Formats: sequence, C-alpha cells, structure tokens
Amino acid sequence: MKLHDDERLDYLLADESMKIIQSTTAFSFSLDAVLLAHFAYVPIKRGNILDLCTGNGVIPLLLSRRTRATITGVEIQDRIFGMAKRSVEMNHLDEQISIIHGDLKEMQPILGQSSFDVVTCNPPYFPTPSKSEHNHNEYLTIARHEVCCTLEDVVKACKLHVRPGGKVSMVHRPGRLADIISLFRKYKLEPKRLQFVYPKKGREANMLLIEGTRDGKADMKILPPLYIYEEDGTYTEEAEEIIYG
Amino acid sequence: MKLHDDERLDYLLADESMKIIQSTTAFSFSLDAVLLAHFAYVPIKRGNILDLCTGNGVIPLLLSRRTRATITGVEIQDRIFGMAKRSVEMNHLDEQISIIHGDLKEMQPILGQSSFDVVTCNPPYFPTPSKSEHNHNEYLTIARHEVCCTLEDVVKACKLHVRPGGKVSMVHRPGRLADIISLFRKYKLEPKRLQFVYPKKGREANMLLIEGTRDGKADMKILPPLYIYEEDGTYTEEAEEIIYG
Repeated sequence: MKLHDDERLDYLLADESMKIIQSTTAFSFSLDAVLLAHFAYVPIKRGNILDLCTGNGVIPLLLSRRTRATITGVEIQDRIFGMAKRSVEMNHLDEQISIIHGDLKEMQPILGQSSFDVVTCNPPYFPTPSKSEHNHNEYLTIARHEVCCTLEDVVKACKLHVRPGGKVSMVHRPGRLADIISLFRKYKLEPKRLQFVYPKKGREANMLLIEGTRDGKADMKILPPLYIYEEDGTYTEEAEEIIYG
Repeated sequence: MKLHDDERLDYLLADESMKIIQSTTAFSFSLDAVLLAHFAYVPIKRGNILDLCTGNGVIPLLLSRRTRATITGVEIQDRIFGMAKRSVEMNHLDEQISIIHGDLKEMQPILGQSSFDVVTCNPPYFPTPSKSEHNHNEYLTIARHEVCCTLEDVVKACKLHVRPGGKVSMVHRPGRLADIISLFRKYKLEPKRLQFVYPKKGREANMLLIEGTRDGKADMKILPPLYIYEEDGTYTEEAEEIIYG
C-alpha cells in the first residue's frame, strides 16, 4: 500500500484488526466520528447505509463491524476521498463499502432519492471562516468549516437520500442544537433520540448525537449523558468501551 | 387563615419560614416547580417577573427568596387562584407578589406587552385527554392537560409579555423538546440554556429546563445533567440542596 509523505497507518480498533490511513495535514478522524458510529442505529443483516462527509472513511469502516448492510461514503475532497478508498481496499472491504468522490448537494443522479435505510453524517461544525483562517490549510478548513456545505445543505441531502421511515444520525456541537432541530423538522426528519456528551462531570456538554426518523411521529428520548473523562483525565469505563470495543 | 376541607398547610422550605396551601384534590406543587424556580435567571435587586400557570403560587413564593423584583402570578382556575392568593397573604408577601385570576391568552389589557424582565412557566404537559379522563377531576385535568391552553398559547404569551432581551424559563417533558425549540424560535425566544433532569444514573431524562432570550443570538449551552435520586432512592446531594436550600 503506497502512502503519501504526510500519511501514516493507524489501528482503527483496539484488536488491531483494522487499519486506517490518517494524515495530520489532510484528515485524521476524531472521537466525534467514533461516537457517531456507535450511536447510530444500523440494520444488522441487510440494507444500505449512506455516510455523508465521510472523510477518510472512518464511519463506514467502523460500521462494517456492526452490520452486513452495504455502506456508501461520499467525500468532496479528492485527496481525502483517495485516503478513504485506499483504507477500504487495505481492509478488504471493497464488497461492502463504496467510496464516492463528489459533492453531497449533487448526489441525486448517482444515488437516486429515498434509497437508503440509514444516513449518517459528521459534518463541518463551524461557520465559514475569515479569509486569513481559510488559507491556512485548505483540507482542514473544508472538513471543519461550512465552506462547501452549510448545515441546511447537509440536512437536505440526508432527507433526500433516506427512505420514509429510515433514520438519520448526526454528531454536532450543542451550540447548534436549536438549528439542528429546526432543520430536521423543516425536512421532515423527526428528532427521536438525543444524547449529550460531556468531557467530565460538572462541565457543559461539548458534543451532541441526534437521530431522526423520516416522516416520524413527534416524540423524543434524551439518553443518559455520556462522560468521556474521569477527574484524573483517564477515559471513563463507558468511553473506553466505545473507543476500544 | 381559613382552609377548605381538602386543604392543608405545608412548609415550602426546609427552614420552615414559609408555608403554602396545598390540596390533593385541587393542586399540590411538584418537584418540577421547585427545579424551575431554582433554574430560572432572576434579577436580584429590582425588575419584574411574571409567572404563568402559577397554580398555588409555588414559583412566586420560591422566587421571592432570591429576588426583590415584583412578581405577578396568573392562574386560570378560580379555586386554585384563591389558594395562591391566601398563601401570599399568609406569608406577608402581598407587597412583592400579586396573583391575578385570568386566562394567559387574554392578559394583554391587564399586563400590557413587553413589560416583564423575566417570564417563568410550568405549563400543563399533556395533550387534551379523552372525555372519560377529563371528567375525573377537573382541577387536575386543567393543571396537567392542554385543555385551557396549548404549548403554543403558552409560548406566545411568554413572548408577548417579556421585554426584548428578557428571559423566559420553562419546565417540560423531554418528549416535547423539538416542539418547544420550534415554538421558542417561532416566537423569537432564542433557546440559550438547557438542562436535563434524570431520575437516576443510567436512565433517560424525565424533565427538561429551558431558558430563552427574546430576540437573542443563536447559541445554546447544555448544562451538566441533574440527577434526582441515588441508587438507594435517597436524594442526591445536588437535588437536596435545591429542594431544601
């Protein structure tokens, strides 16, 4: 497997059965993606899953451990799309996982509509940066900021591709909760499950996991909070179980 | 102080400095009201506060310990309005607290608009019940079900009476979070602080506390979760501090 100069191979899971191409310059996955891959409902035996803003393919790779459904990842950045594609090949998962290079706003000709049981997405969290920030690192800017797609573009694409009754899961920042709920409702993705992630006890939440059902009935469950670190900075038992399996 | 046959006097606070008229038949306050009175922002020295769906006046009474602002409570049920009014008199708080008998949908001629710094509300939680449930106990039905006012009526009244930049606090059920956020936004009450209340560790939330700012900027903080009971069924330290002060 050929790696670029700035790339490295990381183990994806504690059992060292899966590797992923990472790059500090272009894209490295974060805890957020791991938590989303754990939180999202997935069908076990069959079906199909779409992962938007797939980055280096971390979510499709992690989901492949939980389901036999086929998984499609979409990534807009050519360089990062390449990383994802090579990681899928390296793990011999080409039959289960396809990675597409493209813009989530323009996937209808390729993916049709209402054709996925589940859509997941770990979108860019931050508004478009100022020009000076923007130029610093184009890869990271696009992955983290709403440069190529706004939150509304993302929610709209989720709605377009999920079937009626299918589920959409997303990870985001608590500061955007009202925006997320408003947009989910606007696009008929009824919010059903919500979990907040807290860095430590006594702190405000710094992440949220939300799942909506297309055309679902209004009702919402707030899951128990998820704490990441103990007071001494080690992972909580629960976080460790999610991260290392 | 004359009490009806079904009424009793309870201490409102652990220090036994305040009493409140309760009635199993007509109205008894719940933990929800106590948590809201603790959660809500209040100005300390001056200003004015409106409490909608005030019931037996529990929130105005509790708030009077935290602020010198004047407090107005509105209650639609004549019988329960009477309980609140007598409790205020009994505690010699007539100068700080006024209780009004009326419908929150029709308060503009009396209270004007945009004239309160803070509005609090512990509204009915449940949709209109079937006819059979409805007849069981009219007092409790109106207090708990959306018979006399819907959630939208409540949010609309909050918006009407709070000044621009003022705060609206509400306690409700997690199942209604998406409705609450949508309605807050519809009426320009930007959700800013949200806290979930969990009966015990590992359980789903069964209550939420939300505060919005009229015409506020979009941004939301999710406060640390509040647990009510320990595993052994005793109050957590935090709950005890809120309840017994």
